[in-house]
Amino acid sequence: MTKKGSILWLTGLSGAGKTTIAQALVKELQMQARAVELLDGDVIRTNLSKGLGFSKEDRDTNVRRVGFVANLLAGHGVIAVSAVISPYQQIRDQIRQSSVDFIEVYVNAPLEVCESRDVKGLYAKARAGEIRGFTGIDDPYEPPLKPEVTCYTADETIAESVGKVMQVLAQFGIL
Amino acid sequence: MTKKGSILWLTGLSGAGKTTIAQALVKELQMQARAVELLDGDVIRTNLSKGLGFSKEDRDTNVRRVGFVANLLAGHGVIAVSAVISPYQQIRDQIRQSSVDFIEVYVNAPLEVCESRDVKGLYAKARAGEIRGFTGIDDPYEPPLKPEVTCYTADETIAESVGKVMQVLAQFGIL
Repeated sequence: MTKKGSILWLTGLSGAGKTTIAQALVKELQMQARAVELLDGDVIRTNLSKGLGFSKEDRDTNVRRVGFVANLLAGHGVIAVSAVISPYQQIRDQIRQSSVDFIEVYVNAPLEVCESRDVKGLYAKARAGEIRGFTGIDDPYEPPLKPEVTCYTADETIAESVGKVMQVLAQFGIL
Repeated sequence: MTKKGSILWLTGLSGAGKTTIAQALVKELQMQARAVELLDGDVIRTNLSKGLGFSKEDRDTNVRRVGFVANLLAGHGVIAVSAVISPYQQIRDQIRQSSVDFIEVYVNAPLEVCESRDVKGLYAKARAGEIRGFTGIDDPYEPPLKPEVTCYTADETIAESVGKVMQVLAQFGIL
């Protein structure tokens, strides 16, 4: 029997830990023999959204595409784990409304922490004005109003964050 | 047990019957309780490729995106049925090479037949010069060199065409 698919939608600032948590979730779910697919922001930008920039319109288009693909996968029993900044509430809500099982995971770390991590060196470039429209610096991030889970990655271990998400998946009857 | 996924790649002129055959295939496969997903050209253009035009580069980008999504689905046991014109051999071959089970279905009808059908009224517009770069009129269509199946939709019934594809799916161990 095909199991219940769903969308695990990780949202948060660059450097908040979306990809790290998403990868750990994928491993955990695979260990439970679940069909799972990671839709990572960078991979998506390369494969589905080359040419799009970082204006609100282009970001929304990018996020909508991830939602479209996540929905296709979820319809076939796959847990689609999306890890894209997706800074705007309205578009996240649109995807929620078009999905059956949408679980919003707020990967929450203070801007200062994300900036000090600066894994990809992007904050430095944004501060130097080399990148425009960078979320958290000169472009807004709208925190989720009612996320199903919030992971405080500055205070929790990865395992703790993953555990919280797994618990919610169980509550929703997805595990 | 998850069954073997694959990509059924229908290629052919506008009006050749790709969508018709794809829809009939989807029904047939669903009756056999197979997980199947139709990736139709128009739906894809709306959801994944808004903003792209019909230059060679934009067409290739569009086709590559369909291939990316089809591969994601096939990896989870889904038979992804793609119905996009995909006029260029090179890009179809690229997708073939990046896929495990890629079945190229040439939906073949003479240009005159497609033009006389003109389901969407696009040939008339192309002849009137209202649309530029229309495949078969002022943009090339490269017929598949070694398609796994060819459906001659001017001479065969839909059921005959579908039957040929199903036979190949069986030969490939996908059914």
